Order: sequence, then structure tokens, then C-alpha cells
Amino acid sequence: MLNIEAVEGLPEIAAGDDLAAAIAGAVRLMPGDVLVVAHKVVSKAEGRVRALASIDPGPRARELAAQLGKDPRHVQAVLDESRSVVRTGHGVLICETHHGFICANAGVDASNAARENELVLLPRDPDGSARRLRARLRELSGVAPAVVITDSFGRAWRHGQVDVAIGCAGLEPLEDWRGRHDARGRELRATAIAIADELAAAADLARLKDAGQPVIVIRGLLHRSGRADDGPGVAALIRPPAKDLFR
Amino acid sequence: MLNIEAVEGLPEIAAGDDLAAAIAGAVRLMPGDVLVVAHKVVSKAEGRVRALASIDPGPRARELAAQLGKDPRHVQAVLDESRSVVRTGHGVLICETHHGFICANAGVDASNAARENELVLLPRDPDGSARRLRARLRELSGVAPAVVITDSFGRAWRHGQVDVAIGCAGLEPLEDWRGRHDARGRELRATAIAIADELAAAADLARLKDAGQPVIVIRGLLHRSGRADDGPGVAALIRPPAKDLFR
Repeated sequence: MLNIEAVEGLPEIAAGDDLAAAIAGAVRLMPGDVLVVAHKVVSKAEGRVRALASIDPGPRARELAAQLGKDPRHVQAVLDESRSVVRTGHGVLICETHHGFICANAGVDASNAARENELVLLPRDPDGSARRLRARLRELSGVAPAVVITDSFGRAWRHGQVDVAIGCAGLEPLEDWRGRHDARGRELRATAIAIADELAAAADLARLKDAGQPVIVIRGLLHRSGRADDGPGVAALIRPPAKDLFR
Repeated sequence: MLNIEAVEGLPEIAAGDDLAAAIAGAVRLMPGDVLVVAHKVVSKAEGRVRALASIDPGPRARELAAQLGKDPRHVQAVLDESRSVVRTGHGVLICETHHGFICANAGVDASNAARENELVLLPRDPDGSARRLRARLRELSGVAPAVVITDSFGRAWRHGQVDVAIGCAGLEPLEDWRGRHDARGRELRATAIAIADELAAAADLARLKDAGQPVIVIRGLLHRSGRADDGPGVAALIRPPAKDLFR
């Protein structure tokens, strides 16, 4: 039995705030808990925001902005966060971020920014953010939950966004079933389950998007979250270009 | 608070079996429940299986099979379920199914088949399957849960599979937030949440893949699952080719 619940009563988070202390003050952590955290509060605590007014868009940003009907300063911020532009069209800019994620606008987002005219970027190293958050929670509460940091990504081929993991610590992001057997004793075909992404999606169901609930606790996943070390992080979920058919 | 739990004690399902009766016998349904059902039991109940020995592969199946190191009869079954082949490579065949899903092997799968040398296909009309299952459950139990039928799909750009919805009834698969406002009163950018896919992913976390638990109940989603009619189904999640940048 899995229980999923939003953490209530978190304060608004700003640059330099101790997010772990805010979380530890709002929820009593138990061994085996998984904390799923929307990246925006992590980004804000880490100061990963940019004022639109401070951005001077270059020629490529201006050209893409005109083509897509976007603010050229926003596009410049997107390009600054991108390793490459994968596709443009239908008013969207699909980028590969410096971390290797492929998503719209390289995750650069204007909604839920603390102030108007401010962009929120993805954390520079979301696996590192998850590890630091986990270590600080252990320090404060004596319990080291698994931590998953999420963003909402659109998908190829399907409408709508789902939350996915962009960073994690303390759990195996990919549960590898190759070589195991099905209920009838036959070997399963190549099956690796992206547990970190399923946790991200599950947590989003317990959140009211307009209610400011960035932190969700998932309980009852003991058999899959019980690793003492931080593990490989979401880096293990990134499919390298040479093994990808869709870029 | 969301609760997610696997239904215990379901019998093995074969062609012609009354799946709804099996489910109604194993779990006491309550209003607002969401039943998440792995498609394989639906496919088996509907007789959507093919014996490998009955398949005579054509020249294209033989050619692709040789190229990808697969059984040509399996490849023929995949082609029979496909509207088009989207990509081939790395030993996989990414197809667009007749329903419009883009996935490996058009969802044709050998694992968990009732007998060796048998392939399990996707239901012919998974939204229709969900509607029929829901109607029959209402008939048997007096309660019409929301029903989501799932399969495990790989993803572009990311390792691992996640469960996604291939059919649904009684819930809004896509929660449209456009025009709504964030916690600070600003309008959200285009945001539509693929609730049906998040439910599929969440359910998979409560399942032990080798334990034969095809049916999961999700409780506590009342505000999002309470629709009396069947709704548009997963058809509403399919991005039409003209709006897709990745095929």
C-alpha cells in the first residue's frame, strides 16, 4: 500500500533559504519515505533565477523569438541553458539541456516565479541538489529520505505533460528486471522500470497545482527506496545520443 | 491523500472470462475509485492473443527480423498491428499502432502470455474495453469506478519504461489548466496534465512485476475522477502527426 500526500504549511522559498529546514519543520520524516520536490523551490533556494530585464538577447535568440512568437530575452535564457536545439515549431523550442534532458524551453519557466519578469531555471546539478537536500535532512531530522526533484515535461507523440525526475538521491532510479522471470517462470524481455519517473508522476497526482504544494511525501515504497547511499542519480536515466532514435 | 494498492487474489484470466466479475469478486469498489488494469489481462479476456506457429511471415517481416535479430513471426504480428513503422534500430522496432500509439513492437509482447509461443496484442479498442469494463462493474457492484488500461512504454531520450494509459473511461485523461492561475495569481502558461498517464505510472509503483498483480486500486483522487460519463478516453491524449515534431 502506497500513500501519497502533499506537505502542508511550507513557507515561500527565496534565494539562500534552507529548504531542508523548511521541509523538516513541516513534515515528520520516517525511514523509507520518498520526498518528491518540484524543482522550482530548489531552483529558487539555489538562486537559479534570472530577471528578464537583465538579459540582452543575441541575434539567434531574436531570430528564434520572432519565428516562435516568444520574448527574445526568454529565448536567450533558454539558449544559455541548452547544449543544443533539438526541434523548433508549433511555437515551442525543444532543447537538450546541459544536463542532457530534452524538454521544452530547456526547462526555463516564467510561471510561479517569485516576482513578475523573472525566469526560473533548472538547478545546475539536480542530482547534486537532491544529494545535498538529503544530507541536510539527515542532519536535521536523523532520517535520510529518498529525494526526487521533478519538472513537468511534455512528451513526443502524446498530449499533456507529466512530471518526471530531473534529480534524485537515495533510490535506484532505474529498476532493472532483465534476467528476472515473470509470474509463469519465463524470463522477462528487456524491462527496466524508470522508478524515479513513476514516483514523479505519482506525486503530481497528490498536488493541487494552484495550491503551492511543491513537496510531496510517498510512503510504503520501502522495498524500492531502501538504499543507504545516494545511488547514481537521474544521470542514469539519460539515454545517450548514440542509443537514441529520436533526435 | 492518495492510496494505491494492488488487488490480491485475482484468478488467471483466459479468453472469454468475465474480467469485471473477477475484479468485483476480489475488491470492494467505492465511489471515486480508480481501477488501473494492465492491458494483458484485458487482452487475454478479449482473446487478443496469437500463436506464433499460426503466423506466416511475409518478405518485409523477414527482412526486418533479420536486420533486428528478431523472430520473423513476431515481426509479422507487429506489422499487422501497425499503421506505420516509425523507426528501426538498436534491435527495436518503433511503430505507430492502429490506435495511434507510438511504442516498441506495436505493443505485441511475449512475456506473461498464458502459454509459451503465444503473443499478447493490445486490445483492439482500449477505450472501448475500459468503457465495457466500467459498465459491467457498475452492473455487478453498483459502483462505476474510473478505469485506466495500461501498458509499459519506453520513451525517447530517457532510459527505462513507465506505464502509460492506453484506454480509459470515467475520468478526464487530460486536465487542462490553460487560463487558470498559479499560486501568485498569474496565468499559467499552457499546461495540460496527462492525468491518465500519471495514474498509470503511479499504479505501477504498487505492483510487484513478478507477482501477477494486474489490477491496482487508487483511492483519494475524488476531485479528479468524479465524472459520471465515460469521457473522451485516451484518444484525447494522442498527438496528431501534424502537431508532432518527432516522427
